[in-house]
Amino acid sequence: MSFDPASLKYDDRGLIPAIAQDAQTGEVLMMAWMNAQAVTRTLETGKVTYWSRSRQAFWIKGETSGHVQELVDFRVDCDRDCLLVRINQTGPACHTNRRSCFYTAVRDGEEVELMTPMSD
Amino acid sequence: MSFDPASLKYDDRGLIPAIAQDAQTGEVLMMAWMNAQAVTRTLETGKVTYWSRSRQAFWIKGETSGHVQELVDFRVDCDRDCLLVRINQTGPACHTNRRSCFYTAVRDGEEVELMTPMSD
Repeated sequence: MSFDPASLKYDDRGLIPAIAQDAQTGEVLMMAWMNAQAVTRTLETGKVTYWSRSRQAFWIKGETSGHVQELVDFRVDCDRDCLLVRINQTGPACHTNRRSCFYTAVRDGEEVELMTPMSD
Repeated sequence: MSFDPASLKYDDRGLIPAIAQDAQTGEVLMMAWMNAQAVTRTLETGKVTYWSRSRQAFWIKGETSGHVQELVDFRVDCDRDCLLVRINQTGPACHTNRRSCFYTAVRDGEEVELMTPMSD
């Protein structure tokens, strides 16, 4: 079946969550949002492109930082309301310079930092 | 630092997305939503508990199906507006009886089904 970005279920802002996963290691790196056109651009260019809610603009991941996400595989969930992009990540995915945004664990009621920022 | 569920950023419905990842294989299994009390219950019981938007009720994953999610590690992202739960999944995570909800890939413009339902 041919894929139509309009067939996805977007929220009332026209957005769908997209989980970015390292295609090599399986590590979950970040979650951000796409609109229908960001989905189209991601598939057409192979460069993962989100919609920035704060800037209200397309966000080609890594365009300014160089920390690009090359699309390896694009997946849709059963309800068509969440995406999983399997990627090759250059450098850190997180704006704090850590490899993943999920660097804080909650263990025995305490927050534990699992990763330090990467050096350039 | 002591963890306070109220310190997370919830959306205007009081919800935060939670990504469930197989702690053994790294496979991303599903994404669902929690409210503050679901976060508390998940941490207290070790059984991953979501908030069902359709039923407007707590949803202890697997309570009726037996396909429970045992919490292994609970992670918070840099913006505190997304969660990652690393889990031991019994049986399929998806209501279609597939291991993961992300069983559809988009490749060369076509939808490709990657997994078949598990047998009981």
